[in-house]
Amino acid sequence: MFFNTRQRIMAYKAKIRVTLRPSILDVQGKAVQHALDNLGYSSVDTVRIGKYIEVSINEDNLADAERIADEACRKLLANTVMEDYSIELEKIN
Amino acid sequence: MFFNTRQRIMAYKAKIRVTLRPSILDVQGKAVQHALDNLGYSSVDTVRIGKYIEVSINEDNLADAERIADEACRKLLANTVMEDYSIELEKIN
Repeated sequence: MFFNTRQRIMAYKAKIRVTLRPSILDVQGKAVQHALDNLGYSSVDTVRIGKYIEVSINEDNLADAERIADEACRKLLANTVMEDYSIELEKIN
Repeated sequence: MFFNTRQRIMAYKAKIRVTLRPSILDVQGKAVQHALDNLGYSSVDTVRIGKYIEVSINEDNLADAERIADEACRKLLANTVMEDYSIELEKIN
């Protein structure tokens, strides 16, 4: 009798939101707010535009996936001088 | 004795994620994936890049805020031929 002893590698999906810090002027957001106002949506107050990034990570445990997502944000995805980021991890298999 | 009878207008924050449809090639995401691979993060599988938009809406009820957020997505924020969007509403006062 044979058993398959190969360990299955887990995968996680990191859902990352990168947003401008509140003190930074968001000109793109302002433009969208004016455009919505021109379309008749006067109850729209402020618009802030950021990035949304989904990263699939093949790691066995959540801690490693978390570390990789955090390092990816700090090194590549977010400019931490001007931007904040938040990470939400989800197991996908 | 005086009472303030002015009705307070509620505000909602719509958190909108606009993502490329799965069938559309994401070249920006591919570039980020290669960059992460070059930095040594070989367990990163796929990267998809989208937009994250926060919209503050001054409306008295959730249904109106929802309608405005949905119309803003369809008319301005998302290209529904190539992109999907999801809206999450949160009361802010």
